[in-house]
Amino acid sequence: MDLVAIGTIGYDSIETPTGKADKQLGGTAVYLCLAASYFCKVGMVAASGKDFLQEHLDLLTGKGVDLEGVQHLAGDTFHWGAKYHQDLNVRDTLFTHLNVLLDFTADLPPAYREAPFYFLGNIDPALQMHVIEQAKNPVFIGMDTMNYWINSEKYRPNLMRVLEKTQGIFVNDEEARDLSGEYNLVKAANEIRKMGPEHIVIKKGEHGAMLFSEGDIFYAPAFPLEVVHDPTGAGDSFAGGFMGYLTTQKRINNKVLREAMIYGSALASYTVEDYSVNRVASLENQHVDKRYQEFSNLMSFGK
Amino acid sequence: MDLVAIGTIGYDSIETPTGKADKQLGGTAVYLCLAASYFCKVGMVAASGKDFLQEHLDLLTGKGVDLEGVQHLAGDTFHWGAKYHQDLNVRDTLFTHLNVLLDFTADLPPAYREAPFYFLGNIDPALQMHVIEQAKNPVFIGMDTMNYWINSEKYRPNLMRVLEKTQGIFVNDEEARDLSGEYNLVKAANEIRKMGPEHIVIKKGEHGAMLFSEGDIFYAPAFPLEVVHDPTGAGDSFAGGFMGYLTTQKRINNKVLREAMIYGSALASYTVEDYSVNRVASLENQHVDKRYQEFSNLMSFGK
Repeated sequence: MDLVAIGTIGYDSIETPTGKADKQLGGTAVYLCLAASYFCKVGMVAASGKDFLQEHLDLLTGKGVDLEGVQHLAGDTFHWGAKYHQDLNVRDTLFTHLNVLLDFTADLPPAYREAPFYFLGNIDPALQMHVIEQAKNPVFIGMDTMNYWINSEKYRPNLMRVLEKTQGIFVNDEEARDLSGEYNLVKAANEIRKMGPEHIVIKKGEHGAMLFSEGDIFYAPAFPLEVVHDPTGAGDSFAGGFMGYLTTQKRINNKVLREAMIYGSALASYTVEDYSVNRVASLENQHVDKRYQEFSNLMSFGK
Repeated sequence: MDLVAIGTIGYDSIETPTGKADKQLGGTAVYLCLAASYFCKVGMVAASGKDFLQEHLDLLTGKGVDLEGVQHLAGDTFHWGAKYHQDLNVRDTLFTHLNVLLDFTADLPPAYREAPFYFLGNIDPALQMHVIEQAKNPVFIGMDTMNYWINSEKYRPNLMRVLEKTQGIFVNDEEARDLSGEYNLVKAANEIRKMGPEHIVIKKGEHGAMLFSEGDIFYAPAFPLEVVHDPTGAGDSFAGGFMGYLTTQKRINNKVLREAMIYGSALASYTVEDYSVNRVASLENQHVDKRYQEFSNLMSFGK
């Protein structure tokens, strides 16, 4: 196992300015693993409910995702509803039915404990910490989180303990501001680095993503698309592509991390082209390489 | 004369989250010409009032800006007041005293009519058109505009005539949407291209700027700064740097336009580091080159 990704399996009911889709396959772990599957052997740690369809399990295994870490529980699958504004960076959550997530324990199968790379999707920091404690010899632990955990007196202490153990954090601009107490993103990244992770990725939706490492900043734009159908999963696809690419490299340095930013952006850009996982689950490796090259065209200048 | 820039000379009263500055030198033509002065001989077409200080005329001539095109009128200088939000992309205009702008005619001195490059700052489209009509053999005309002209039944017909005559337009994302009727920026650029300009630059403030040419898109991020004191003039400094760089090139092609985007971004990034023109008026050429190289570091990846 190259990479272990923990997060949610879910059914999403989404409305965007271009249409709506009810009870579609979603969840952070699903997007993470599908995106990473183009690069490496990835194992999923998540919980599914009794209503979770066999065809969706088949879709994941068909992409080479290892499902040994999935807990199949008796309740219903996590179900989330949201409506996006015309500015697709803004959405309103309509409902969140946690369902089987309440019984999810995030225990790792033995084979997963030997993995070198981990990604902790946005979930209760206590579960993120539990994964870290089971990892025997991690090389790079990436994490996501959200304002719900950041701004909670109850959860924040655990979150800070998780941060200390990670090498990379992926948050959006608002989360970076809440976590650091700094509005300016350069200052925010510097503050977050003091909390543990050496590498801070700040995701800005349609405005791209920035990587802040010690003494180094890299900017990856979002890919300019004529139609964005559904931004759901873009951030997790980004992280999956990023982490997946890292696993293919002997050494992690600024050059590799910059390339990982572009692969992450490539996967995210495909995800938003269609609803649910339709696009990110149906790519060939050549599509990923093509988009990487398109990013090079988008960003290159000078001699 | 390499470049002629038309716009305003103004005094700005500005409040930002980091401080305030009253009746400081500003105006679109001032920022345009100061930024362009690092690249070429630029002539200013604008109107100043009786209260305009000699030291500010001296500052401009000291940077090599030609002021033969400035009309010195009897009233007060244009005076604008604004307050920026913590999100520096958003500002409220507190007052606009047009003053001498009401008598500004935008007549070009004979030497200006031979110039190859023109930039039409954000001003009444009738005045922009008047400049175009005086230009004898223009190679590249760039323009800015704003929602006030775009959304007005009175002014829009003139604006459309100006657009037909220009090679490049520089607008922010909101203006691009209003002008085109398209929310998506790729589609907006395609619609605007049909109105005349081959090259559409969409400025996104702290999120950078995009260049849309036929079959080619280039993304330039905003330079990540720890402190932004005053965003006023960033867009005009961008345009001034962009146009100034174009004048130094034998041919205008995608490669040159991309470099111009970076020089524009470099000048804009310096402008916002301090209030008014303090920073953009005090640079050396080596600072401009240094920032260009820093942009290369910020954006490069791969082999």
